Amino acid sequence: MERKSIAIDMDEVLADTFKKILKTANDLFNLSIDKEDVRGNKFWNLLNEEQVVELRKAINAPGFFRDLEVIDSAIPVVKELSEHYDIYIATAAMEVPNSFIDKYNWLKEHFPFLNSSYFIFCGNKKVVNADYLIDDTVKQLDAFTGEGILFKTIFNENLQTNHVQVDNWKEVLEYFNSLRISV
Amino acid sequence: MERKSIAIDMDEVLADTFKKILKTANDLFNLSIDKEDVRGNKFWNLLNEEQVVELRKAINAPGFFRDLEVIDSAIPVVKELSEHYDIYIATAAMEVPNSFIDKYNWLKEHFPFLNSSYFIFCGNKKVVNADYLIDDTVKQLDAFTGEGILFKTIFNENLQTNHVQVDNWKEVLEYFNSLRISV
Repeated sequence: MERKSIAIDMDEVLADTFKKILKTANDLFNLSIDKEDVRGNKFWNLLNEEQVVELRKAINAPGFFRDLEVIDSAIPVVKELSEHYDIYIATAAMEVPNSFIDKYNWLKEHFPFLNSSYFIFCGNKKVVNADYLIDDTVKQLDAFTGEGILFKTIFNENLQTNHVQVDNWKEVLEYFNSLRISV
Repeated sequence: MERKSIAIDMDEVLADTFKKILKTANDLFNLSIDKEDVRGNKFWNLLNEEQVVELRKAINAPGFFRDLEVIDSAIPVVKELSEHYDIYIATAAMEVPNSFIDKYNWLKEHFPFLNSSYFIFCGNKKVVNADYLIDDTVKQLDAFTGEGILFKTIFNENLQTNHVQVDNWKEVLEYFNSLRISV
């Protein structure tokens, strides 16, 4: 039987992008916003227009995506999943074109066991041909034609969705282990 | 009825990448190889090992993919197709990671009417979820799960394949027009 494929999103799923965005904003504007203060996507509303422009510029600058922290347990779980599934990395990079090379080098550093011919830098994830997609964006899961799995974050926790939901990488592993047992 | 989607390869299909590779090789090594001399993929065999390394380095350098010529009639035909189909651009960029930003900017310059959320920078095109793929690489068409269309070049003209074949962009348009008439 052909191996099934799992496509995995990067920002907030493999990489703690928001942690760096928050630190950058706090440093730039001399703020002390805590992650817990911005549950439910209120973060950008805390900034004024000029700050939004300046922060977007910082995010677009070469290098921003190169030194992000890896989300807890992502590496060992993806490694274990890669023994049973083809792993694709599907990241919406087209909105931040300067991030391409950083994201590629970041993946090569932290996930050297992955096959880069299965990296997909895209926009809308309806273009991704895989059996599963693990993503924190409900809109992307809705567009995807396979089975979507919502990776919970402080931003999507209150959204209504019928997709399977997981709180962390341990739960991702448990979910796929349960599928393999039930087959 | 939902619009069907056509994924289109970049190198040798939208962009005359080999023309620049040949010019770069001729300039670097003081050669005068003509495109007609290298039919059937003999080009790289004409170079010695050191030349291959040096040429690959030149291709990998930032900027190489930014000023490629557009293949004849690609722009008007893709524009016309975009009125009836969702157009995805699917390019195998993972082997030349420095090309990402150049390819993005090149597409934005020459195909400004395309939706960049449908650009796909990938490796193996089995990951692309589209109805059609226009590509000059038989291996990619074989991996693709939709209907493949071979864009003929001097390199693939002698390969055996069961895919639909087109010689140029006018034939691409004729092919898709014939499909729409026959529906």
